[in-house]
Amino acid sequence: MKPGIPKGTRDFSPEEMIRRNHVFHTIQNVYRKFGYVQIETPAMENLTTLEGKYGDEGDKLLFRILNSGEPFQKLSKPAPEVRTSEVSEKGLRYDLTVPFARYVVMHQNEITFPFKRFQIQPVWRADRPQKGRYREFYQCDADVIGSNSLLNEVELVRIIIEVFKSLGIQISVRLNNRKILAGLAELIGEPEKIIDITVAIDKLEKIGREKVVEELLNKGLSKDAVQKLQPVFDMGGDNDTILASLERMLKDSETGMKGIFEMNFILDTLKDVYPNDIVPVVDVTLARGLNYYTGSIIEVKVDDSRSEFSSSICGGGRYDDLTGIFGLPGVSGVGISFGADRICDVLEEIGAFPDFSNISTRILFVNFGQAEARHCLKIVSALRDKGIYAELYPDEAKMKKQMSYADSRKIPFVALVGTEEMKSRKITVKNMEDGSQSSLSIDDLVAKLG
Amino acid sequence: MKPGIPKGTRDFSPEEMIRRNHVFHTIQNVYRKFGYVQIETPAMENLTTLEGKYGDEGDKLLFRILNSGEPFQKLSKPAPEVRTSEVSEKGLRYDLTVPFARYVVMHQNEITFPFKRFQIQPVWRADRPQKGRYREFYQCDADVIGSNSLLNEVELVRIIIEVFKSLGIQISVRLNNRKILAGLAELIGEPEKIIDITVAIDKLEKIGREKVVEELLNKGLSKDAVQKLQPVFDMGGDNDTILASLERMLKDSETGMKGIFEMNFILDTLKDVYPNDIVPVVDVTLARGLNYYTGSIIEVKVDDSRSEFSSSICGGGRYDDLTGIFGLPGVSGVGISFGADRICDVLEEIGAFPDFSNISTRILFVNFGQAEARHCLKIVSALRDKGIYAELYPDEAKMKKQMSYADSRKIPFVALVGTEEMKSRKITVKNMEDGSQSSLSIDDLVAKLG
Repeated sequence: MKPGIPKGTRDFSPEEMIRRNHVFHTIQNVYRKFGYVQIETPAMENLTTLEGKYGDEGDKLLFRILNSGEPFQKLSKPAPEVRTSEVSEKGLRYDLTVPFARYVVMHQNEITFPFKRFQIQPVWRADRPQKGRYREFYQCDADVIGSNSLLNEVELVRIIIEVFKSLGIQISVRLNNRKILAGLAELIGEPEKIIDITVAIDKLEKIGREKVVEELLNKGLSKDAVQKLQPVFDMGGDNDTILASLERMLKDSETGMKGIFEMNFILDTLKDVYPNDIVPVVDVTLARGLNYYTGSIIEVKVDDSRSEFSSSICGGGRYDDLTGIFGLPGVSGVGISFGADRICDVLEEIGAFPDFSNISTRILFVNFGQAEARHCLKIVSALRDKGIYAELYPDEAKMKKQMSYADSRKIPFVALVGTEEMKSRKITVKNMEDGSQSSLSIDDLVAKLG
Repeated sequence: MKPGIPKGTRDFSPEEMIRRNHVFHTIQNVYRKFGYVQIETPAMENLTTLEGKYGDEGDKLLFRILNSGEPFQKLSKPAPEVRTSEVSEKGLRYDLTVPFARYVVMHQNEITFPFKRFQIQPVWRADRPQKGRYREFYQCDADVIGSNSLLNEVELVRIIIEVFKSLGIQISVRLNNRKILAGLAELIGEPEKIIDITVAIDKLEKIGREKVVEELLNKGLSKDAVQKLQPVFDMGGDNDTILASLERMLKDSETGMKGIFEMNFILDTLKDVYPNDIVPVVDVTLARGLNYYTGSIIEVKVDDSRSEFSSSICGGGRYDDLTGIFGLPGVSGVGISFGADRICDVLEEIGAFPDFSNISTRILFVNFGQAEARHCLKIVSALRDKGIYAELYPDEAKMKKQMSYADSRKIPFVALVGTEEMKSRKITVKNMEDGSQSSLSIDDLVAKLG
């Protein structure tokens, strides 16, 4: 009888909603300012749209919806032989990127390219729930599709910096480029091993050089090839030093040099246009979503002395052919995604949520009885007309109960209007913080709360 | 290969999103002003929470989610004998009321009552899709739980009036009370036939008196009983006339008289506190969701000469025991729900959407090449810092293409900054509506667009 909710899902209380909305609004206001326009897609997609897009592991994590009617009745086989595809045609959205690609292909004739869209919606994954990982969570994506210009990358980095500045979180941005990784794989004569190489390099910080070398050898790289990667392990210093050293290594790789050019373009433009912004750090070990990205790769981490949070809170990159899977090849895209849940966790941790008192009730009128209530409702209505959030306690309850309602709702002022105040047309206002009382006219009250 | 979306679902384009957001924001701003606080619940609920709450028909319309893993493998029976409950434990939210009741019971120790909550989220129903009816649609609910005061009904009516005033839709509000209907059923000696009676009376306007009488006789009412209902068929005139005639009929029914008292209280308070508002119309034929409501019943229809829309766009009522099904009995609630999709349709029909140009890009900078682009990005950045939505076209494309991008995005101004403008530090601004051009400084431009 005790009701519950499915594991990995959450209810959001009024206090949590205010905080979450703050994060969503901040992100979406910056997106809008940069000319991104919002779309929404259905929670349910056809499984033909979703399947095969997230790897075998992803297919297993899709939430599938049972067909309506009597899906089992038409099947003449033992139950264990039933395949899910025989009873399920739809699944819940797993991310926002695949539905976006599907959207672009379906609506290609209505869309003007480049199409700068943002989308903030929940996604569902049948992951094993654990701390900070949910089965329903929001993604906040922005992508530009149909433009090869690196200025899009520049603007996306600027969006990231502006969002976190608005939120009050100090961050570091890391930048890599798939073409540099491809160049390195070429350099050591193992171009087809780019994924293995990057996955290994990605662990450098975590497991150390020796283990990385071991892993590379296990993956079938020759000692000679691993030796050639040595400079990558030693790479350090500022962006210019790293890029110079990469340039020496990759001078014979057209792809690699293209990657370095792109990186330089983005960094130079950022420095020129936004001289006061933090500068992304070049990091060849950044591999994030490599199967998918074809150019720039961006990752953002918290870099705030008040936070112990170390995982990524935003990331993105360029993919050269997003819509090809749905029959529209050769359309390049670049995008980023903010992890709203994690950002909320960080803001909580560092105490950086702003004061929200202006968007909740400012004053509660105590209900002393029918005549007083009507009188108060008129004042409440006048306050609301001035944009002030006000409430009348609906029931003629005990004073203590009404005051504790104000208290638990964190309403800063309580108005007491009895027969005397009705006659004098004044309002006795109690400050809930310091307990002080004052007698005010409506105009005074508007001035005080406005 | 051609991608599609499940029937009854929709993609929302940027233009549609702006319109929908306008409706959602209007509703939620009014809710907030009246002290309602927002919650959200998960899209998925346990089927034990959902099943049996919407009648047999509702159970059939639930979208059920297949359990993860291999739900069929453990079953040793023929497929046609599989029951959905053996392979599915979760379903998609069917409305916002049942999840809200579940929320209140689960969080009863954190909640201060009366709890005034609003919730704006999509719901899913496996209904047969048809014009204006979707399988995924938004509900916008506000409910007060834990207060018997009729002032809640008063405020909900006021919320309705304020929302539609803000939206610019003329409406009529109808009011009924389940207790009056119960009184009528008592009066004619058929208290247990209240549902049949109300369902029949509800059709009066549509099918006429003769057919209603026929239906009542078919439902097993005596001729004598039907005869006693006669005054209801003839009821007309203003609220006072109707209530007086009901009072004559129901003077011996305690329940009926209670209903009349409630109606009078609500109408009198509304008239006193909001003398300039439209007045709800008493309508004893209003039966909306009767199984469910125990007191006031509210329904809103469009009453606008510009609209041919006749169905309900908002409604609600009081229910005495919402959370009893989840083990918390005796908690009264009253609420309303706005039909956001239908409201959008009406606003479209009557052309009452406001001008949204201030929340989309105001000016596009043409991209003439790398040096110009950088220069423009700095101006764009300065404009954005002033809160002006500005864009630089990312690619160095043909002029015609860039202009047609501005055109299709309905961007009102285009900025042309070539080498000459870079030298003179001026911006040539073209008005896209009348084609006129002017040469402005940044400050002039800010003043023009700000």
